[in-house]
Order: sequence, then C-alpha cells, then structure tokens
Amino acid sequence: MEIYQSRMKKAQEMLSGLDFGLMALFPSSNMLYLSGFYDEPGERLLFLLVPREGDPVFLAPELYGQQIKQESPVQDVRIWKDSDGPVNLLERTLAELDLGDERVLVDDRMWAAFLLTLKEVLPKASLELASQVMMPLRMQKTWDEINCLERAGEMADRAFENIVGLDITVMTELDLAAALEEVMIKHGSEKIAFETLVASGPNSALPHYRAGRRKIEPGDVVVLDYGCRYQGYCSDITRTVVCKATSEDVRAVYEIVERAQEMAVQAVRPGITAQEVDRIAREEITKAGYGERFIHRTGHGIGLDVHEEPYINDGNDLELKEGMAFSVEPGIYLQGRFGIRIEDIVVVTETGAKRMNLSTHDLQVVG
Amino acid sequence: MEIYQSRMKKAQEMLSGLDFGLMALFPSSNMLYLSGFYDEPGERLLFLLVPREGDPVFLAPELYGQQIKQESPVQDVRIWKDSDGPVNLLERTLAELDLGDERVLVDDRMWAAFLLTLKEVLPKASLELASQVMMPLRMQKTWDEINCLERAGEMADRAFENIVGLDITVMTELDLAAALEEVMIKHGSEKIAFETLVASGPNSALPHYRAGRRKIEPGDVVVLDYGCRYQGYCSDITRTVVCKATSEDVRAVYEIVERAQEMAVQAVRPGITAQEVDRIAREEITKAGYGERFIHRTGHGIGLDVHEEPYINDGNDLELKEGMAFSVEPGIYLQGRFGIRIEDIVVVTETGAKRMNLSTHDLQVVG
Repeated sequence: MEIYQSRMKKAQEMLSGLDFGLMALFPSSNMLYLSGFYDEPGERLLFLLVPREGDPVFLAPELYGQQIKQESPVQDVRIWKDSDGPVNLLERTLAELDLGDERVLVDDRMWAAFLLTLKEVLPKASLELASQVMMPLRMQKTWDEINCLERAGEMADRAFENIVGLDITVMTELDLAAALEEVMIKHGSEKIAFETLVASGPNSALPHYRAGRRKIEPGDVVVLDYGCRYQGYCSDITRTVVCKATSEDVRAVYEIVERAQEMAVQAVRPGITAQEVDRIAREEITKAGYGERFIHRTGHGIGLDVHEEPYINDGNDLELKEGMAFSVEPGIYLQGRFGIRIEDIVVVTETGAKRMNLSTHDLQVVG
Repeated sequence: MEIYQSRMKKAQEMLSGLDFGLMALFPSSNMLYLSGFYDEPGERLLFLLVPREGDPVFLAPELYGQQIKQESPVQDVRIWKDSDGPVNLLERTLAELDLGDERVLVDDRMWAAFLLTLKEVLPKASLELASQVMMPLRMQKTWDEINCLERAGEMADRAFENIVGLDITVMTELDLAAALEEVMIKHGSEKIAFETLVASGPNSALPHYRAGRRKIEPGDVVVLDYGCRYQGYCSDITRTVVCKATSEDVRAVYEIVERAQEMAVQAVRPGITAQEVDRIAREEITKAGYGERFIHRTGHGIGLDVHEEPYINDGNDLELKEGMAFSVEPGIYLQGRFGIRIEDIVVVTETGAKRMNLSTHDLQVVG
C-alpha cells in the first residue's frame, strides 16, 4: 500500500506545481497506478478525485464500496446508490474540495458520458488531459516494474515455444488464438493483455485484423500478436510464422523486416529520440523498396497499458531515458498477399536496450 | 451490408429530426451497429462522422484503411499517417460537412483525449451524448438480433453444464475462469463477452470481484458470472454453486434470491416499467430481511454491449416494450461470509418474457 501513497503524493505535488486544482480519474491504468484499485470501466460513474492538497476521494457505486477499501489505501470512499444516481454526491463532494480557479485534469480515457457530467457540475472548469501529470510519473519504469515486464515477456516467449509444436493445419485462426490464450494462462499470465491477434494468409496483410473463422492452410503466412500480464504489467510480442512450407518471396520480405527490427533495437540508448529509432527501421525497409508498405509507427510504450507513451514515430522528438519501455515492431503489408511483423519489447538501460522477449527471430515453419 | 445502410439512414433521419448537425462515433458498439466495422478503442484517433445529410465519413489511421473498406459499406475512408497526426485531416473534413449551428452528438464512450480534440477543432460546438439517437434505435431488438442473443445464451448454458462436472477443489478461481472460457470458445463463442468472474468463499460477497489466485475450498460458495458472444451479441449469466457441501444458511439465502429472481422474471411484460421489475425483486428480498444486502440494481439491458439500456433500477420509469432484452439478477451479499446471485437474460415478448438462459436454478453442489 505504501507505494500507492508515495505515488499519490508525487502526483499531488505535480498538480500543485502545474497549478491544477483537481485530477479526476476514471477506471484506468492511472487509477490503478495511484490507488491500487481497478476494474473495467462501466456505465456507473466511478471517479477517483485527486485534489492538489488533502486526501483523495473515491466516488463509487454501492457495489464497489467494500472492495475499494480492501484494495486501496484511499479510505475516503463515498458511495452512491443505483436508485439515487451519482450527480448529487458529485456536486457535494466537489463543493468540499478547494479547486482553485477550476483548472481540472481528466483521465485521457474517461468516457464522454462522465466527462459531460463533470462539465455539467463544474460549468466553468477548463479541462485538460491527466496524462500531463501521469505520463511523466509512469514513463520511466522502476526496477520492480521492469521485473514485472520481464516476467510477462517470459510467459509470452514460453507460449510461443508451445505453439510452434502444434499442428496448425487443423485449426482456424480462432482455434489457434484460443490455444495461445490457454498456454498463456498456464504459464501464469493473470489474464491476456489484449485480444489475441491471429491473422493467416491474406489476413496477415491487415495489421489490426483479429482472429476469425478462416482455416489455416499450408503455405499461409501467420502473424501472431499477443501478450500476457504479470501484476498488471503487460507483454506484447509478435512473431510471423509460415504453415508447413514457405516461398522465396515470403522469406525475402521476412529478412528485410528482421533486419530493420534488429537495427532499430540496436540503436536504442539513452539520449536517442523516439523518431530516430523509427527512422532507422523505416529507412531499412524503404531501402528495400517497401517503405510505402510499412503503414504504422515503429512502436509504442508499454506498462500497465499495452499502449502508452513513449510512441516511437516520426514527429516524436522525445529523448529516450533509462527505464522507458516500448515495442519495436516494424512490418511490411502486401495487400491481398501477406504481411510480416516482428515485435519485441525493450527497456532502455544505462547504455543501450534490454529485450523483454527472447523468442527466436528465425522464421519458424509450423504445423 | 444493406442492414448497415438502412440503420444509417434511420440514424440520419433522427439527427435531422432532433436538429443535430453531426454525430461523431468512436470505436464502440454504436460504430459497429451503424457501419459493420469495429475494433477495440486505441490511442489513435478513429471517428465515424455521421452528418445529418450526405455520406458518412470514416477518419482512420493508415493501418485500418483497407480493413474498413472490406468490412463496412461506408466507403469514404480518409486516412491519416502516424507521422502527420489526425488533427489537420479532422479540421478539413469537418469544414466540408454542413454542421448547421454545431449541435454535435458524441459517442457516450468516446475517450476524453478525443473529445477534447474534437472540442478544439469545433470550439463553438455544443456536445451531447449520441445515446439520444442510438438507444432508441438499438433498444428494441429485431428477430435476427434476438436469435443471436439466444445462441449466445445457449453457449453459456452449455458451458455451465460442463463446469458442474469438474473437480473444482483442485482449482484456483483463475483456473476455473480459464476452464469456463475454454468451454465457451469450444461451444462456438467468438470471444468472451467480458472478463469472467469467479468469486469463491468470502470473495463471493463482492459483487464485482474478478477471479484471483484463491484456491477453491470445500464448503465455499462460488459465484460464476460470464458470457459468450455470437455475431457480436452478448450473453451474460450468473450461477451460484457450492463446493462439495453446503450449509443451511447458504441454502436459505439461496432460496430467497431464487424466489426474487423468479418473481421478477414472471412480472416482465410489455407496459410494466423497469423500476417496477426492480421493486418486485427488491421487495421479496427486503421481506426476508436482506434488503440492505441487495446492493445493486436488478438488471441491465444487453445486446452488442454487455451493459446497455434499459437499466432495471428504481427511478427508471421507462415502460418495457416487446423486443427489449435485459438481465434479471438480484443478489444478497453478506460481507466476510458469502454472496448469492442468480442471473438470466430475458427478452420482452408480446405477452411476457422469454428466457435466453435455461440452465437450472437448483443449487448445484460441485466438485
């Protein structure tokens, strides 16, 4: 519990320093990070109200009252009942807090329904995003947090080892996704970090396609993108495999992606900018003639959220610092044919980068 | 694809009728309902912009461009690149649309980060919630939609039958949750409808507790709350079982909940109000002396979202109509001891209610 209290103290100091009166958090990784309590967002208003001074307050539906007190050091939990609704309690609670001139931070992922409710209760407030305070706190991971990322990464690696031994020619994409999720849980993952992506054949050319009912066929390229959780921290790994046999075309494109990924990882060190890492992967792919087919950024930060800052893309001149954790995942997508992506999580060390994923990059022929 | 075009037309007529210039949807069930396209919300701005007249427009990050055109009849897909960001494209696109006096609807679950971006681009806009238009469209289900709810309910029933045969005394809550999820997928569920809840022993007294590392012990009350998906439509079922053996205390409380649930379901028919259904369950539990321990509403609507309107709670005087689908799930929660909840989904018929879950309500002794 002490860790949450010390984080809360830092957050309140930052609120004060930046002259915000209040930070209103919604069920999110920010809420978990500061309070130890989390549940999926729901339609019932649930706020953690962090004033710049004094004790933070949970405003919660009745069914959470007991659970929050058990899981969080925040002990001022104010309960509203389904039959009353939350608005009166929100008004009374905000009136008690000293909001200054009503500069208020709201959780970046707060639902519009709650933001508009807050705006109704505080019509004069100017609203900005809580990431201003939360991201500087969360972006450089502590040793404990890096350990969690490493454990989550190991589970994902072990799941991949299990998968390459399967006969995937008897499976649909959804079957393979279910098999992956089963081994993730078996290896100790608390839950999956995000919906498992299994994209086979031409579907592999769609970077955000999810698993579907398509049967995996010999000759298919199959992109596997999945992640585990350990103490709330995520892993995220992508491996591209081929079913039964491969062609020279596939192998050639695979090698370009593999090289681009390796060069970008090798470039990571304190002081390099995020966009520079992106540029290194992108130039390698462009040089090979596929620049237009690398249709996303090189990576994203990771921690309690699967996607968080720092984003590794052109235009982001953030200098990387020790303890930052992010993915390096270039890809090439050939519409109607196939796609290739290789992704590892790395953490910036004093002198370079440490990989959280150690599964082989050699093209695996599966099934 | 025609179904999406006809829904879009209705939505635009309602926008026009209510004098809104624009509805901005975010990745959500609303987006899926109107366009056929859905993915999990992410940090990249992705809007479906529905003007009151003329063609709707997707504004999407580059990596979705191909996928949206495949999955949706909305063919005006405007792409932004990670390196450029979305704001300029959003400005240009909104300038092309005729927004009238800028009364704009936003998706109820739109993230604050995107709502504030929209507000920046349209500083004079007055924002209200899209549910004003979407809920009247979605609340009364069509025959096809009810079929999907029924299939999703059957899968959940069959998963329960598999579970009562297991030896749960060798399992933790998380093991049992994983076993449930595995049989759900086996019975054809596309994915799970929400994170499976397995609450054993004293944890069962926390209505929103998720599965944890607690080992299930003989004598435990175990609450199982889970759901499947069929063509996007959810099921949601709760059964409370006991491990190995039960006590008279547990049985007595179970019977009260069972009776309250049955009476509420029997009361459902067109014309009764949502709060009346809540009152019937609540009075039965209050009469037995546990009114204060029934700490949530009686139910929630269900469809493409696990929780949607109509909510079955005190204060909601909405009259139920044929085709509305919702849960009936009273519970009693005794802190530090145990909790009991029984939940079925029902659909309002011409004269009463049809259950989407048929699993037995008799108290099952498992393991």
